[in-house]
Amino acid sequence: MKKLTEKIVKFRDARNWKQFHNPKDCAISLSLEASEVLEHFQWKSKEEIGEYLKKNKKEIADELADVLYWVLLMSHDLGIDIKKASETKLKENAKKYPIKKSKGKHTKYTNL
Amino acid sequence: MKKLTEKIVKFRDARNWKQFHNPKDCAISLSLEASEVLEHFQWKSKEEIGEYLKKNKKEIADELADVLYWVLLMSHDLGIDIKKASETKLKENAKKYPIKKSKGKHTKYTNL
Amino acid sequence: MKKLTEKIVKFRDARNWKQFHNPKDCAISLSLEASEVLEHFQWKSKEEIGEYLKKNKKEIADELADVLYWVLLMSHDLGIDIKKASETKLKENAKKYPIKKSKGKHTKYTNL
Amino acid sequence: MKKLTEKIVKFRDARNWKQFHNPKDCAISLSLEASEVLEHFQWKSKEEIGEYLKKNKKEIADELADVLYWVLLMSHDLGIDIKKASETKLKENAKKYPIKKSKGKHTKYTNL
Repeated sequence: MKKLTEKIVKFRDARNWKQFHNPKDCAISLSLEASEVLEHFQWKSKEEIGEYLKKNKKEIADELADVLYWVLLMSHDLGIDIKKASETKLKENAKKYPIKKSKGKHTKYTNL
Repeated sequence: MKKLTEKIVKFRDARNWKQFHNPKDCAISLSLEASEVLEHFQWKSKEEIGEYLKKNKKEIADELADVLYWVLLMSHDLGIDIKKASETKLKENAKKYPIKKSKGKHTKYTNL
Repeated sequence: MKKLTEKIVKFRDARNWKQFHNPKDCAISLSLEASEVLEHFQWKSKEEIGEYLKKNKKEIADELADVLYWVLLMSHDLGIDIKKASETKLKENAKKYPIKKSKGKHTKYTNL
Repeated sequence: MKKLTEKIVKFRDARNWKQFHNPKDCAISLSLEASEVLEHFQWKSKEEIGEYLKKNKKEIADELADVLYWVLLMSHDLGIDIKKASETKLKENAKKYPIKKSKGKHTKYTNL
């Protein structure tokens, strides 16, 4: 993750794009790229999605990479250690969703 | 990234949640979590965002971790090597946005 | 639609909120409110959605009203006649999606 | 609004698309179209947005019409009277945001 972040920052800085990368516009980008992932699955039934995935894996991988790009770049710019933040969040979620209570349910923790 | 993915998959499978994790609903989650990142920056001016970031870094780190959770889990479930996909995408973007043409501009490659 | 727009603008102006309503932040609001509609349907199967709709119609109506609020307010502020724009768009879509070609298919017009 | 809804439903039904219009996929569409509105304002400064609006009003009107399409179609399909729902929501918001407390502030009602 560190190395990938370095590559992303280097790509950005070589183009002198940091001037545009205020947090609000980066967060807009993150949201738009996530929408592009979602667009692939719209209107399709489970069966159609299965078929679609076989033929369009590269396109979906591209979109997920775009989302990851913004997660890593925002984390870098905001001074967030995203690996550590993810591990902390997993621990917090493990408390919010104890295995006993949440096993096999898609209930929000506030309703468990 | 691999280790973090393993932890995420382990967290999910301990709760028997894979049954809900069809790609369409995962992509919805990805999009909703990206919106939650964006929500932090809404209505705020540059100065207000600066102030806000000092006091709310943990909250934003949490939301970015939620987005990363879905990027890694979707990549895992769809058999996508997201590290490799990211490196490929960076190379493709380097071609789409040659430094000479794109330096200091936020123009889309189709209009460069 | 005109009357509703007037009420919305009056509500806004009584609170002196126009100063915050630059198009970028309004568009962020529109996107976030649309996400809140989507959140209601996440993880649910068709059957669960049927059950859910019976009990939560008011909540979903509220979220759709929030989206409409921003559509009407943005249209007003940008000098867009949204009724006319909608009718124009319907006519354009009727050309993009001729009944013969598109009947019973969810194919994008670019692939028809 | 009623007439526009009728036209939209007629457009849809002529193409036999109701079979695809389950609430989850319609809500995805709503969210994606709202993202397309947002995309127009990304990366642009206030001045650039001013310039952009002059030249691209039709494009933005189109995207707002797409969002409205889904608000009206979802409301229709779910049996929601969106005009009434909007008026109710405005009244509720007037209580949440009393003029005295909220005038000139972009504070969420939970923090007022």
